[in-house]
Amino acid sequence: MVFINENYLKIKNNYLFAEIGNRTQKFIKENPDAKVIKLGIGDTTQPLSPSIIKGFHVGVDDMSKKETYKGYPPYKGYSFLRNLIVQHDYEPLGVKIDPEEIFVSDGAKGDTANILDIFGKNIVAVTDPSYPVYVTTNVMAGNTGSANELGQYENLIYLPCTEKTNFLPKVPDFKVDIIYLCSPNNPTGTVMNRNQLKEWVNFAKEQKAIIFFDCAYEKYIIDSSFPRSIYEIEGAKEVAIEFRSYSKTAGFTGVRCAYTIVPKELMGYSKDGEKHSINNLWFQRVSSKYNGVSYPVQKAAAATYSEDGIKETNELIKNYQENAKIICNGFDKIGFKYFGGINSPYIWLKAPNDLSSWDFFDLLLEKLHIVGTPGSGFGPSGAGYFRLTSFGDKGQTIEAMDRIVKYFTN
Amino acid sequence: MVFINENYLKIKNNYLFAEIGNRTQKFIKENPDAKVIKLGIGDTTQPLSPSIIKGFHVGVDDMSKKETYKGYPPYKGYSFLRNLIVQHDYEPLGVKIDPEEIFVSDGAKGDTANILDIFGKNIVAVTDPSYPVYVTTNVMAGNTGSANELGQYENLIYLPCTEKTNFLPKVPDFKVDIIYLCSPNNPTGTVMNRNQLKEWVNFAKEQKAIIFFDCAYEKYIIDSSFPRSIYEIEGAKEVAIEFRSYSKTAGFTGVRCAYTIVPKELMGYSKDGEKHSINNLWFQRVSSKYNGVSYPVQKAAAATYSEDGIKETNELIKNYQENAKIICNGFDKIGFKYFGGINSPYIWLKAPNDLSSWDFFDLLLEKLHIVGTPGSGFGPSGAGYFRLTSFGDKGQTIEAMDRIVKYFTN
Repeated sequence: MVFINENYLKIKNNYLFAEIGNRTQKFIKENPDAKVIKLGIGDTTQPLSPSIIKGFHVGVDDMSKKETYKGYPPYKGYSFLRNLIVQHDYEPLGVKIDPEEIFVSDGAKGDTANILDIFGKNIVAVTDPSYPVYVTTNVMAGNTGSANELGQYENLIYLPCTEKTNFLPKVPDFKVDIIYLCSPNNPTGTVMNRNQLKEWVNFAKEQKAIIFFDCAYEKYIIDSSFPRSIYEIEGAKEVAIEFRSYSKTAGFTGVRCAYTIVPKELMGYSKDGEKHSINNLWFQRVSSKYNGVSYPVQKAAAATYSEDGIKETNELIKNYQENAKIICNGFDKIGFKYFGGINSPYIWLKAPNDLSSWDFFDLLLEKLHIVGTPGSGFGPSGAGYFRLTSFGDKGQTIEAMDRIVKYFTN
Repeated sequence: MVFINENYLKIKNNYLFAEIGNRTQKFIKENPDAKVIKLGIGDTTQPLSPSIIKGFHVGVDDMSKKETYKGYPPYKGYSFLRNLIVQHDYEPLGVKIDPEEIFVSDGAKGDTANILDIFGKNIVAVTDPSYPVYVTTNVMAGNTGSANELGQYENLIYLPCTEKTNFLPKVPDFKVDIIYLCSPNNPTGTVMNRNQLKEWVNFAKEQKAIIFFDCAYEKYIIDSSFPRSIYEIEGAKEVAIEFRSYSKTAGFTGVRCAYTIVPKELMGYSKDGEKHSINNLWFQRVSSKYNGVSYPVQKAAAATYSEDGIKETNELIKNYQENAKIICNGFDKIGFKYFGGINSPYIWLKAPNDLSSWDFFDLLLEKLHIVGTPGSGFGPSGAGYFRLTSFGDKGQTIEAMDRIVKYFTN
């Protein structure tokens, strides 16, 4: 008799975005004429820029000729892309990354999920609220007990991020082995400064812990005093894995390309106290369970670093940043309390009139035909909050905020 | 202190193909003028066909326009592709597959590896020899003990496939929960017939076991009496997951697209004896840890089903089948014993003069500058055997066989 992984039975809710999708589809079915605007899931809406399209086509054409045809890609990604990452994403920050520390992948979500494969039983801490994948994948891996009524899992450490803490996690005064940090943060839009990040790096050093640093939104940082990479903090290469993505920076949600930095200095331990290279373990995982990223996709990613590609990508980000501003301005008009929206594509809104997150979701959907994301879906501390994203179309974002301002002004 | 997954420390050898790569690179470095021919790793060499290139370009162009731009793909793959799979890959076999049972992915290797995530502790059986990924991923998942000197892992069941068994696994007379079957087989090139497969389906039914059926090479079957899908066997949807790939059928090793069928009838059990849908569990895994396949890649895969795409793909397979024939003819000339090569892209060769697999590897590399794959890398029963593939270039395949015939004739 074949036994299932019973940890899956502990998962309490459907994946947040699946639930949003279900409610939205139901509404659209019942109200086919409603002009629904989606500012919920963090999906991009603007086309790939001309240089990226060109690079992508070149990659496809290479596959059409025997001389330039490519079979299995290198596990870690093509050197042409990894060298560009070193040169453009790290050298300007004064951070030295060896191309052998870079693992190009088909998505940061998969990377933050699969990275758990190479770790044993550990005390894991997530921020509350946080990106649901961090929690669910720890449940699946058996790192937690069952969920309580609030949806919090036993044996998982939740670091509350509330208005009182400026939505930042406090460095704990107890033992933790793995910490997920996300900056600019999804969902709260907050960014960690140098000192805050330094505290975490020092904590991880003391504890021989590892930080999973998700900076998929680093390109949205306008204020240059904020670090874009955790490796800008001295010693971070000994304690941190960094996850990055082309999804929100170059519109690659439907293209699928990301990368993860696993420094050579980074060590994990076997129970006998012996050190083991995390870079080696991750390579073993990647080479045994994965076959690399599509060649034309890597060519498209490389094109984001061309002179025109950089310009166009900056334009795209600027466009989304303007959407964030439109959302913020709208809430300013009606006196709604919100966080984020600067240095971040996310706006973290306090639901008005003490509404619950899902009640506000239903109100926005049913009255104003706008889809957002209930804050409680990101963890109990998100209760009463709501996430809007700037990844929509500009016209639709304006229209959505007009509807909101009008409704809540009357 | 962060603990690693100590199961990784049990892995005895480097991944087979990594070791081949290392020895080959060393040889090339020391002999830069040698014209090395690679018939080792099962990597394709012929360009994508015109229809596929066209479909791929259309997909890229769709991403360039706001109206047709695509963000996150559906977790299971686009309907346009899943409907084509139903219509072209299953309906002609008389097999009814619901598109909701299809999970489009970036590779069958990843799928056969990741599928273990949703299962608990089970008695797992692999054929010996077998595709190394089946074994390594079970070691990583903690389903085995340590390796012995032959590289066999404790608690993993090995089903010997030798000349005496016609390289087919015998249905065991003991308890097994998960069985990996691969037909046409990698590495031995053997194909299971209807009766053999029926025996396995019946066995799995009796045991409430699940068969992981890898038929990545089904398009190489010439003899139509052999089943192309395990679902051609009555009742197989209750006991089998089927893995397929565009890699070896349409030259997608560098494009990355595959799919897996998880029937709705398929059930696993929790320890309390309750049934759970494997399709639901796999969807939960996929939606939590994965974000789907690149849209242009799915458009390229869809193009393999167009009228011209089918013709071109058949041509490509025919070309590789001719290579297999060239290899077989060469061995016939010098009286070498081999298996496979018909209904399969793999030729499974008995190493001459009782050489070990790796000694024959070194001989071929050093004397004839040909890279093949040592049979012992696929399991202890592969000792003394050697795998050649038909995925090379035709001219190079002819040249390689000329070198072999000449060397062993003298």
